[in-house]
Amino acid sequence: MTIADSDRDGITPNAALWRHKWGFKDTFFKIQPDRSIVMTGDRYPLSGCKLDKLLPHIEESFGIQLDIHRPKLEVTERAIAPPHKNSDFCNELAQLFPCDRYSFDDEERLVHSHGQTTTEEVYKVLYSQIERLVDLVFYCESEGDAQILIALATKHQVCLVPFGGGTSVSAALKLPHSESRTIVAVNMQRMNQIEWIDRENLRACVQAGMTGTQLETKLNAVGFTCGHEPDSMEFSTLGGWISTNASGMKKNRYGNIEQIVENITTISPSGTLEQLQSLARVSIGIQPQHVLFGSEGNLGLITKAVIKIHALPDVKEYYSVVFPDFDRGLQFLKKLAHSGAVPASVRLVDNAQFRFAQALKPQVFGFSAIVDRLSKFYALKIRRFDPLAMVAATIVLEGFAEEVAFQKAAIRKIANCYQGLIAGSKNGQRGYVLTFAIAYIRDFLSTFHIIGETFETTVPWSQVQQVCQAVKTQLDREHKHYNFPGKPYLSYRVTQLYHTSVCIYFTLGIYTNGVVDPDRKIAAIEHVLRQTIIENGGSVSHHHGIGKIRSQFMNETLSPANIELLRQVKQSIDPHNIFGIKNNIFNDQP
Amino acid sequence: MTIADSDRDGITPNAALWRHKWGFKDTFFKIQPDRSIVMTGDRYPLSGCKLDKLLPHIEESFGIQLDIHRPKLEVTERAIAPPHKNSDFCNELAQLFPCDRYSFDDEERLVHSHGQTTTEEVYKVLYSQIERLVDLVFYCESEGDAQILIALATKHQVCLVPFGGGTSVSAALKLPHSESRTIVAVNMQRMNQIEWIDRENLRACVQAGMTGTQLETKLNAVGFTCGHEPDSMEFSTLGGWISTNASGMKKNRYGNIEQIVENITTISPSGTLEQLQSLARVSIGIQPQHVLFGSEGNLGLITKAVIKIHALPDVKEYYSVVFPDFDRGLQFLKKLAHSGAVPASVRLVDNAQFRFAQALKPQVFGFSAIVDRLSKFYALKIRRFDPLAMVAATIVLEGFAEEVAFQKAAIRKIANCYQGLIAGSKNGQRGYVLTFAIAYIRDFLSTFHIIGETFETTVPWSQVQQVCQAVKTQLDREHKHYNFPGKPYLSYRVTQLYHTSVCIYFTLGIYTNGVVDPDRKIAAIEHVLRQTIIENGGSVSHHHGIGKIRSQFMNETLSPANIELLRQVKQSIDPHNIFGIKNNIFNDQP
Repeated sequence: MTIADSDRDGITPNAALWRHKWGFKDTFFKIQPDRSIVMTGDRYPLSGCKLDKLLPHIEESFGIQLDIHRPKLEVTERAIAPPHKNSDFCNELAQLFPCDRYSFDDEERLVHSHGQTTTEEVYKVLYSQIERLVDLVFYCESEGDAQILIALATKHQVCLVPFGGGTSVSAALKLPHSESRTIVAVNMQRMNQIEWIDRENLRACVQAGMTGTQLETKLNAVGFTCGHEPDSMEFSTLGGWISTNASGMKKNRYGNIEQIVENITTISPSGTLEQLQSLARVSIGIQPQHVLFGSEGNLGLITKAVIKIHALPDVKEYYSVVFPDFDRGLQFLKKLAHSGAVPASVRLVDNAQFRFAQALKPQVFGFSAIVDRLSKFYALKIRRFDPLAMVAATIVLEGFAEEVAFQKAAIRKIANCYQGLIAGSKNGQRGYVLTFAIAYIRDFLSTFHIIGETFETTVPWSQVQQVCQAVKTQLDREHKHYNFPGKPYLSYRVTQLYHTSVCIYFTLGIYTNGVVDPDRKIAAIEHVLRQTIIENGGSVSHHHGIGKIRSQFMNETLSPANIELLRQVKQSIDPHNIFGIKNNIFNDQP
Repeated sequence: MTIADSDRDGITPNAALWRHKWGFKDTFFKIQPDRSIVMTGDRYPLSGCKLDKLLPHIEESFGIQLDIHRPKLEVTERAIAPPHKNSDFCNELAQLFPCDRYSFDDEERLVHSHGQTTTEEVYKVLYSQIERLVDLVFYCESEGDAQILIALATKHQVCLVPFGGGTSVSAALKLPHSESRTIVAVNMQRMNQIEWIDRENLRACVQAGMTGTQLETKLNAVGFTCGHEPDSMEFSTLGGWISTNASGMKKNRYGNIEQIVENITTISPSGTLEQLQSLARVSIGIQPQHVLFGSEGNLGLITKAVIKIHALPDVKEYYSVVFPDFDRGLQFLKKLAHSGAVPASVRLVDNAQFRFAQALKPQVFGFSAIVDRLSKFYALKIRRFDPLAMVAATIVLEGFAEEVAFQKAAIRKIANCYQGLIAGSKNGQRGYVLTFAIAYIRDFLSTFHIIGETFETTVPWSQVQQVCQAVKTQLDREHKHYNFPGKPYLSYRVTQLYHTSVCIYFTLGIYTNGVVDPDRKIAAIEHVLRQTIIENGGSVSHHHGIGKIRSQFMNETLSPANIELLRQVKQSIDPHNIFGIKNNIFNDQP
C-alpha cells in the first residue's frame, strides 16, 4: 500500500514502523534459549546486546516466574466495520483532491484511531478491539488543503481529528462513542518540511507534521539544533508538541515547547489563527496564541510554527552521580536547581529504576568488566552504599567548553555535599538513552501478561517524597484489592527541575496472568493513583496532557469560571464542533 | 484628606507623592543661579548633586537656548465637573461599605483618571484639562469587596476601571469618551500584603495592589527577593504588571512577569478566574490564566498572585563596558546573549544616551576627578574612541560568587573581541540607577517646553540597526514637517536580550516653544514612528502594552480570527462590559 509505505522526504519510511503500536518493526526484545534477552535490530545503543540479568530481575521484581513459552498472542484477524461514509462529503472530496490524498483502507483507519502509548488503547489494539474507527484518513499536504478540508467538513457536517505522530499518552486520539458524523483523521505527516531558516536571528519556520528526528536531522545537517527532546521525539511531531504542551529532556537549555515556539499558524473553522509577525517577548495585550498550547486537537489544524534554533553545542557530555538514597539525591537536585549552573538535562532515578538500569547492562567482558566491578566495589564496600537504597542522577551537559566546565564544577561541589559519587559519563549516557527503549520493554512485557503504565506530575519540592510515598502505599492497597498475582512494580524518577517544583515520572507494572479484564482494572488503578497525586499536592499532568483519561480531574484544577471560559473559546473558534475529538473539559464520556 | 494621605501599611505614604504626575513631591530638578542643576531631596543617588554640565548639554542637544526664567506654569485652578452619580448604585454602595471605602473628592477623581507617563496625558493634566474624570474612587480592601462591587456594578450598570499604581505608558487609564455610565476607579493599593511565604518551595502569595518597592522591602526583610524591576517599580503594582505583561530589568535572572507568576486570582463578572492549585509548569490543556497577562483592565479585578521568590543573592555587582561604536556594542550583546553566561541585567546605550549620562555626572573633585580624567584620557587618547560614537553597556550581576565570576569572565572575554573597554562598577551603577531619574527629568524639561516621550519594541537581532536608523530618519522628517524649532533629540538603548530578538527603548525629545498644539503633534509623531518600527520588523510593544495609543496597530499584529477570539473571551468573561475601559482591540476612539 503506497500511502502507508512512503512518507515523502521523511527520514523514516512508514514501512519501517508498526504504526498500530509503538516503534520500529525490526526492534523488539527477544528471549534466547538460555533465558538471556536480546534487543533486535541496530537502531539503539542497546540493540544486539545480550542482556543476561534482565529476566531474573523482572521475575524478582514482580515476585513471579514468567512462562516464557506461552506468550500472549496479538490479535491477527481484526473485525473492522466498514466506514460510515457521508456520501456528499466523499463525493466532493474526490472532486477536489487527487486520490492519494485520502484513504478508506482498513489498516490506515485502524492506525489512525488510537494512540500508541496509553495502556488501555495499546492493550485493546493488541489483544481485543478498538470500538470506534475513523471512517477515512486525509493526508494534509498544505495549508490550502487544510482550508478546503475544513470548509468541506463544515458544509457537510463531518468531524475532523488532527493526527500527528500518534504517540498520545492521554487517550487524546480515542474517538468519542457519541460521534455519529463521519470521522476523518487528518494525518499531518506530509507537512514535514522546514520552510525557512533565519540564521541570523536563530529561528526556523517548521511545518507541523515534522517529527523530532526529522527536524533534528535536517537542522543538524546545517549546523543547528532545536534541542526539544521529549521521550517520543522519534515519532511525535511539532504540531503534537504544541497541542499537548510538551516538555523536552533538555528543557533547561532549550526550553519547553511554549518557550521554543514564537508563532503558531492554525487553520480553524473561524479562520487562520496567527500573529502576523513572529514575535519573541512582547506586550500586545492578551496573546491569543497561548490558547493553542494544550489545545489537544479541539480547535483546528496546527500547520506550522516559527521556533527558536541554536547553533550545535561545542561540547556535549554525559555525566552521572550516584547517591546513597533518594532523599540525598533530591537535596542535590534542589541545590543544583537554584545554583545558576543547571545543565541541559538532569534526572534522578529511584532505587528500583537504578537496579532496573543495572539489569539492562549488557554482559561485559575484559577490561570494562574489571572497571565495572571496581566501581561497584568502591560504591558498595568502601562507601558502603546500600544496593537496595542507592539512586543515580543522569546528566547531560551541552554548551560552550567554559559553560560545561562551570556546570560540572558546580555539580561536583554540590554532589559532594550530599555524599554523591561521580559515576562517570558512560552510566550517564546509558541512563539517558534508555528512555528510548522503555516503550519496547513495555510491549515485550505485555506479551507475558505484565501491563505497564507511566504517569507524571508537577510537584512542589516539599511534596516530592510525600507524593511518591502516597502513590506507593495506594498502589499496594489497590494491588491487594484486585487480588493481582505477585507484587506490584513502581519506580519513579525526577525528570525536570523548576524553581518551585519538579516533574516526577512514575512507571507502574502489574503482572496480570489469569486476571479478568486486566486493562480495565489497571486503568482504574491509574485513576486512583492520579487522585492520590492531586490530593498530595501534585498537578494532574506535567507534560502528558489531559486527553480523555485525565479529563475528570479538571474540576479540581480550574475554577468554574475558567472552565466556562474554555468552553467559550471553543465556541468562538469552532462553533459547529468540526474538531469533535472532545478532549479535556469537552470529554463527555466517563 | 485622610484617604489620600494614608496607604495603610505601605512603605511610601501617599502624601509624599504628587499622584497627579510622576513621583515624589520632594524630588525635582531645580536650576541654580549659576545655571547648574540640582536634584532635590535625598531619595536617589543623584539627589543633592550639583550637575553643572546638564544645561549646556541639553541646549547643545536641542540646538536651542532655554529661557530659564520663564518656566511654563502648571494649571493650578482646574475646572472639575461634578461627578455623574448613578444614585441607586451610590445609595447601595453607602449601605454596604463604610465611608472610608470610597470617595467623590475632586482631587481623588483627577488622579485616578489618567496615567502618569504618557506625554499626551501628562501634558493635559499639567497644562490643560483631562476631558473625562471618573465619578468616584473605590478603595478595594479584599476579594469580598471586589465581589460585592462587581455585583453592584452589574446590577446598576456602572463601569469599573481597575487602578494600580497609575504609571501607565499606554493611555490605558484614559477614559472612553463614549462611556455614559457612572465610572468607578477601583484603587487596589490597599490590597498590599504578602498573604503567605512558602520558604521551602520559594513562592509567595502577594496581593495585587502591592508596589514593587513594598514587595521588595518586605521580602528583603526576611531574606528573599522577587527580582522584578520594571523602571516603574517604585510605584507600579503586581496587578499592573500582570495586566500590562511587564518586563523587569533583571529578567535574565528572575524572568519577566509571565515567568514569575504561577497563579493569578481575578474576580470577574463571570466569577473567580484561577487555577485551584498554584502550578509551575504543567500540561493541563489550554491554560486560561494566560488571558490575564496583558488583559489591560478589560476583564476584571486581579486581586492576588502566587509568585516565585528567590533567596537574596550572595553577590551583587555593577559593571560596565565601553565600546567604540553602537555596532560593536550590539555584536557584544548578541554574542553574550548566546553564551550561557548572561548576567541578571545588561543594557546598551547609544552615543546620545552615553553623552547624556556623562552630562548627568555630578561635579567631582580631588582623587575621583583625577581617576575620571585618567579613564577618559585612556579611552579617548590611547584607544582613540570617538566621543561622538562611543557607547556603553551597563551590567548588573547577581548570584553566587562562582556564578558571578563565571559571568564576569565571559563578559570580559567577549568584550575583548569587540574592542570593549571595561569601565568599572561605578559607571555601571550610575547607568542602572539613572533609570529612576528619567521621569523627573522629563517633567523638568517640560517646564521649558521640551516634550519627551519614550517608546519601545521587540526587534529581531538583524533588524536592530535598521529600525533605529529608520526611526531617526523619520523623526527628522517629521520634525521638519511640523516646523519645530531647534533639533529633535533621539536616543535609544537595548534593554533586554532574547534568543532571537532584543528590546529597544527609544527616548524622544522635541523643543516646542511657540508651537501650537505641541502635545497633539508629538502624539502624531509617536504614531508615525511606531508605524516605522513595525514596517521595519519591530513589534508594536515589548512591555509598555497597547492601551489606547497603540490600539490601531493591532490589525497589523494579529490575524482577524485571533482578534475575533479576543472579543469572544471578553464577551465570555464580562458580557455586560462592566470593565469598560476599552483598551487594546476594544478601543473605539481614534
